[in-house]
Amino acid sequence: MEEKKIFGRIWVDIDDKNFLGKGKVELLKKIDYYGSISKAAKDMKMSYKAAWDIVKEINSLSSQPVIETKIGGLDGGGSRLTPKGKQLIAVFEAIEKDLNRFLKNAQNKINKLLQD
Amino acid sequence: MEEKKIFGRIWVDIDDKNFLGKGKVELLKKIDYYGSISKAAKDMKMSYKAAWDIVKEINSLSSQPVIETKIGGLDGGGSRLTPKGKQLIAVFEAIEKDLNRFLKNAQNKINKLLQD
Repeated sequence: MEEKKIFGRIWVDIDDKNFLGKGKVELLKKIDYYGSISKAAKDMKMSYKAAWDIVKEINSLSSQPVIETKIGGLDGGGSRLTPKGKQLIAVFEAIEKDLNRFLKNAQNKINKLLQD
Repeated sequence: MEEKKIFGRIWVDIDDKNFLGKGKVELLKKIDYYGSISKAAKDMKMSYKAAWDIVKEINSLSSQPVIETKIGGLDGGGSRLTPKGKQLIAVFEAIEKDLNRFLKNAQNKINKLLQD
């Protein structure tokens, strides 16, 4: 018997433009972890420019910045998630967790209804 | 205030190969509606070969055919969903309906938690 496996993904648009999805959330979290867009880009195997363009677009779509970059200062500066950015990611990941529960249920339905 | 809108989609793999998703379900239903792969392909603005390849792959991944094609006969033949194919689409669409409810809930959460 073949095994049918259900998958799903969610994303958020603002003004019909892609604002947030799994990949962007991963990038934003890595930027915050490293405090650096270039280190996060390297880790994601993307160019600095690609990562920077994504950050710029996310910040410009959002009414409040999601990532803020400080240059210099006592802590040497760097890029971090803003409180708004952290909240956004928390909500996205909570919904993703719910989606995984939803998919588990759906998988059970498929297994039950589509026995061969 | 910008408007965040959440989207989602589901799909089903068999043996790590894409078996069914929104587009394939649409194609299968059109084939059944027209009784014809070529008419369905035209309606979907895809080539006959592309549609035929999709049908072939879906049928070969599934333990039972999803589309059956009869040549000639009293009714002139044509391509139709099998009972298994109809059941498959019914289950997929029921899960999609549940997903839309899920997304509505998620949208409410976003609206509530992410007020600017």
